[in-house]
Amino acid sequence: MKIGIFGTGMVGQALASKLAELGHEAVVGTRNVAETLAKTQPDGFGNPPYSQWAAQQPKVKLGSYADAAKHGELLLNATSGNGSLPALEAAGTANLNGKILLDIANPLDNSKGLPLQLYVCSSDSLAEQLQRAFPGLKVVKTLNTMNAALMVNPQLIDNGEHQVFVSGDDADAKQLVTAFLRGQFGWKHVVDLGGLATARCTEMLVPLWVQLMVTMQTPMFTLKIVK
Amino acid sequence: MKIGIFGTGMVGQALASKLAELGHEAVVGTRNVAETLAKTQPDGFGNPPYSQWAAQQPKVKLGSYADAAKHGELLLNATSGNGSLPALEAAGTANLNGKILLDIANPLDNSKGLPLQLYVCSSDSLAEQLQRAFPGLKVVKTLNTMNAALMVNPQLIDNGEHQVFVSGDDADAKQLVTAFLRGQFGWKHVVDLGGLATARCTEMLVPLWVQLMVTMQTPMFTLKIVK
Repeated sequence: MKIGIFGTGMVGQALASKLAELGHEAVVGTRNVAETLAKTQPDGFGNPPYSQWAAQQPKVKLGSYADAAKHGELLLNATSGNGSLPALEAAGTANLNGKILLDIANPLDNSKGLPLQLYVCSSDSLAEQLQRAFPGLKVVKTLNTMNAALMVNPQLIDNGEHQVFVSGDDADAKQLVTAFLRGQFGWKHVVDLGGLATARCTEMLVPLWVQLMVTMQTPMFTLKIVK
Repeated sequence: MKIGIFGTGMVGQALASKLAELGHEAVVGTRNVAETLAKTQPDGFGNPPYSQWAAQQPKVKLGSYADAAKHGELLLNATSGNGSLPALEAAGTANLNGKILLDIANPLDNSKGLPLQLYVCSSDSLAEQLQRAFPGLKVVKTLNTMNAALMVNPQLIDNGEHQVFVSGDDADAKQLVTAFLRGQFGWKHVVDLGGLATARCTEMLVPLWVQLMVTMQTPMFTLKIVK
């Protein structure tokens, strides 16, 4: 399948590696290809620069946001929260219309320290902002409540016996994303939370997740529903 | 131990029953004792009126918020979010100063339907609002992320192998609350999230919890950290 991924960071890389490994044609989109390739320093989280990662991923192509959007039958948003709207604007409405956007970004305000703050919460969400700005896109929020490695390999914890959430207004899109999560990444438990407004609930989970990561000194955990 | 409980609803009742059963002297505080006793209809969640519950709880006393605060060596806030500040104001600063308030309330805005909204989030919390209004009180946020029955009996799920969070600025108060949760209610895993500002994280978890309760059609579940 042809997949466009917005964002060259840790999440974009994890998705692209996994999808290439599975035989999909992934194009990663960035704001400025030359700038992205010129980076030689690790990012703020200590991840190696994109070019270093890309050298080991010959099947993954890098392009503009428009290139990635044009290429993708399915689109994945792995940009930072405040980079998401500019990324979609750069991608262009014509390249987005009618497609599904699997939205993983979170509206994090990194300027305030811990506990991590959100720049939108409770009465709105980043996912809804993207949907309102691009009504021709079918936004499905998912995977935004966990570490990147776990997104593409749920087996890393508890034999995969935990849940991922999906929120979206388009039932068919949500069904396709659910099948994608199950079939490609091996998710056993996909919980449909409801319409896209329920993305507020999962975005608001992220500050607790970050606080727990700091407390437990590892990102390799998740919050599992137990009955 | 002498314990004052603010709030006559489902959470206040669950706490009072359990504490009386454990031999503590519990006084439940309400805005207006006569009005509370005069209610003959179930509340909005289908719980029986207070007087009906109280008839089977001869050891639990009902009084004003001031009565409960005066009585309690330890205070528990089980009011609704927007009832919390008025309750503490009615209790009176002199009856609160120097005491620990175990704050279980959540800043829910029930006027907007689902997904449930909060009237404060991300950059502030109800717990911090209470702490700022009553600096002589030692506010510790806890138990606010689950069903009332589970708060006082964690064994109801997964043999008690799940977590409760505590947030607070006073280290001694947090330690006492942790010991109380372990010793009285049987919590095996009490996770210290940090200062009281981390109450934002657990309050923001509540809309997801409510959405899951609706999706799963049961309140008898929790979100457990798995590694």
